[in-house]
Amino acid sequence: MGNSKTSLKMKDKVLYLPAVSLKHLLAVSVALNVALVLKLLHDGDEMVGWFTAEETAAGASASAHPETTSAVSSSSLQQEYINLDHGDPTMYESYWKQMGEKTTVVFTGWQSISYFSDGGNLCWFMEPDFANAVKRLHNVVGNAATEKYHIVVGTGSTQLYQAVLYALCPPDTPEPISVVSAAPFYSHYPMATDCVKSGLHKWEGDASTFNKNSKPYVELVTSPNNPDGSTRQAVVNGSGLLVHDLAYYWPQYAPITYRAENDIMLFTVSKCTGHAGTRIGWALVKDEKVAKRMTKFMEIVSIGVSKESQIRAAKIMNAISDGYEDKEKYNNNKLPFFKYGYEELGRRWGKLRAAVNNGKVFSLPNFPIGKCNFSGHEFETQPAFAWMKCEGEINDCEGFLRKHKILSRGGKHFGSSSKYARVSVISHEEHFDEFIHRMDVINSSGM
Amino acid sequence: MGNSKTSLKMKDKVLYLPAVSLKHLLAVSVALNVALVLKLLHDGDEMVGWFTAEETAAGASASAHPETTSAVSSSSLQQEYINLDHGDPTMYESYWKQMGEKTTVVFTGWQSISYFSDGGNLCWFMEPDFANAVKRLHNVVGNAATEKYHIVVGTGSTQLYQAVLYALCPPDTPEPISVVSAAPFYSHYPMATDCVKSGLHKWEGDASTFNKNSKPYVELVTSPNNPDGSTRQAVVNGSGLLVHDLAYYWPQYAPITYRAENDIMLFTVSKCTGHAGTRIGWALVKDEKVAKRMTKFMEIVSIGVSKESQIRAAKIMNAISDGYEDKEKYNNNKLPFFKYGYEELGRRWGKLRAAVNNGKVFSLPNFPIGKCNFSGHEFETQPAFAWMKCEGEINDCEGFLRKHKILSRGGKHFGSSSKYARVSVISHEEHFDEFIHRMDVINSSGM
Repeated sequence: MGNSKTSLKMKDKVLYLPAVSLKHLLAVSVALNVALVLKLLHDGDEMVGWFTAEETAAGASASAHPETTSAVSSSSLQQEYINLDHGDPTMYESYWKQMGEKTTVVFTGWQSISYFSDGGNLCWFMEPDFANAVKRLHNVVGNAATEKYHIVVGTGSTQLYQAVLYALCPPDTPEPISVVSAAPFYSHYPMATDCVKSGLHKWEGDASTFNKNSKPYVELVTSPNNPDGSTRQAVVNGSGLLVHDLAYYWPQYAPITYRAENDIMLFTVSKCTGHAGTRIGWALVKDEKVAKRMTKFMEIVSIGVSKESQIRAAKIMNAISDGYEDKEKYNNNKLPFFKYGYEELGRRWGKLRAAVNNGKVFSLPNFPIGKCNFSGHEFETQPAFAWMKCEGEINDCEGFLRKHKILSRGGKHFGSSSKYARVSVISHEEHFDEFIHRMDVINSSGM
Repeated sequence: MGNSKTSLKMKDKVLYLPAVSLKHLLAVSVALNVALVLKLLHDGDEMVGWFTAEETAAGASASAHPETTSAVSSSSLQQEYINLDHGDPTMYESYWKQMGEKTTVVFTGWQSISYFSDGGNLCWFMEPDFANAVKRLHNVVGNAATEKYHIVVGTGSTQLYQAVLYALCPPDTPEPISVVSAAPFYSHYPMATDCVKSGLHKWEGDASTFNKNSKPYVELVTSPNNPDGSTRQAVVNGSGLLVHDLAYYWPQYAPITYRAENDIMLFTVSKCTGHAGTRIGWALVKDEKVAKRMTKFMEIVSIGVSKESQIRAAKIMNAISDGYEDKEKYNNNKLPFFKYGYEELGRRWGKLRAAVNNGKVFSLPNFPIGKCNFSGHEFETQPAFAWMKCEGEINDCEGFLRKHKILSRGGKHFGSSSKYARVSVISHEEHFDEFIHRMDVINSSGM
């Protein structure tokens, strides 16, 4: 090893880092963590999920110095809050790094000047390459039909969610249309529905207890579900409009047991490829009028969607498809993307279940085993989040974990009990491993 | 000239195009135009500004084949609708092209995975390089103060506009807060304010006739104004909250006569550098609480802003600053960016005013001459849009222009009279020149 490098032995992994960068990173990391923990303690719930911790230090450093990704020393990590509150998919960083130049994208200064991408398409701001990459990837995986669907691109599926509500709730509705989802539901839905007190739609919470009284309603079906990983179908026995949020219906998380053909389906690259910072999602929409209204919404609120992000997302999605359809072009020596994700999540869930079963403090949901039509594997869902229940007399699971310097999101944000907390399983490896270590400490201390 | 190339002589400019690409482009262009004109005639006002025409054909081709930018033959153009309805800043394409690799940006596959950019910043999803580029460029130009300001990045200033309203209108407001702007006002404001029938804010139109009755209100001050180019100050004599939309306060459009220090100022790269497809805007905000609420809004509606777009915008803005601060690094043989924009717009406005003065059909507003602190030039505002008035008995200026295959946006969309129409001056050069040609035809036909 050269003089200019320092090695950090972490479990079975050796990281080679420039010595200067390491010191610098540690200083930045410690300083940031002090600031962020103070911010967290000060802001409390207001910032649910979107304050940050050391992911940022590592992430920012990774942008500036790609070679130093994951450069958080285990000794400093032990003192830190581990932020597993949000589903920041930094787990995927190491995969894309080992793929080298396969997904590098170059933009010239004169590219993508115009607002317009494809005047012939209903969604005029969508890059044709992106639309093609979406169709190709769904075709490779078999998780959703794309024939006879309109594709609408959005700034993440978050923006598409609001576009769907705009499209489904007519402007002349006499009163806001009820929006419901079975609890526990994604914590973002209530605030995204009600943030500007819309006269078009109103969050009405748990679909299981919704009294529809013949009113029109929109039911959100998230499958696999965020936060608890369950496979979902509509629960309201009525004729409401359904929106299927299929962000996690990819073969690293769940067996692909059917080809989805719902009226409106939402997807996002954040959870599919791991590129959350790119802010790209897409909707597959059967009804042309709905797709047009969604496009209109995106026009009003942001005059379209970043071309750079669309073009980069297309490159990455096509690389994933190449891994199955054109292996030579991809890289024969590397695992195809979904196989990597499946194996890594399997490893993590194995560790997590072992840690939970090693004590009596926590429990986890179990999932039925299904055969994946894509991979041929039989497995149970291994979600991006662990929906942990604190057993016994611990009534505030989020607070309990926080005492152990683990930041999670409490059950109440999901319309559920504070006995539960959602913990991300797709963080940087070091953070996940430190989380497991702290679970062991909790178990061995008897509380 | 080699066999593989075809030359098109257009005014003083020779375009070299691969012969095959040219034929292909013409076919695509004609097909697209038929489709788009049908769409336009069908959709009418619903799609104000955001259907498309031949910009798209050229734009899409430019993405795929950068060497064929501007590849619209003058012979085909004469048959086409010229779309000058929206302010698509394709004028700038040729400038960035001649700058070659100076603003090329490369993204590796593992870059910008995380949602987070800068956990230490109030606006946690803003790239530090972007924030620095914003401060640097304002410092170079002197058009706005940045010390003591918080910067918030948005998906264009369009998204920031909504974030401002969210931040200024408290969630417990008993009735929606009035939002006003002096007519003629930017046509996007009304729909962006009311699209989901918010209980927080309500569009109340022309600020000049607003009866405030001691109610709280938000006044939008757009200066230079869209659509008419006028220099603006607040008109309501009250204590409402002011938002300054300074999208066009750059030295190619208007003399920089003061350093703006308003409470909330909105800017966008679309009109500054010409990169509309990048969808990046920024707000300079004095009050920390307002900046925090704006950040919160962006978190709710799109969980931040594309990292790729931010990083690319930073590169381009820094290149512009280099043109003044580090000329050797930039390119000594090329015009600095704002000088190019200033000269090109001066040339276009010279042609436009000559064409208008050559007949009695149209008139244009005049602007006072100001000395630009940045360039030292004395000049009158040369806006991105021409606010044209049809004289005499022509009462529907947009309809009149449409008969001559010129697509514009009628005065009523701006809270004004249909005697007016807004026409973009920052389109591709060929489209602008064809527009001038049609003005001459109209003048010579006496109507």
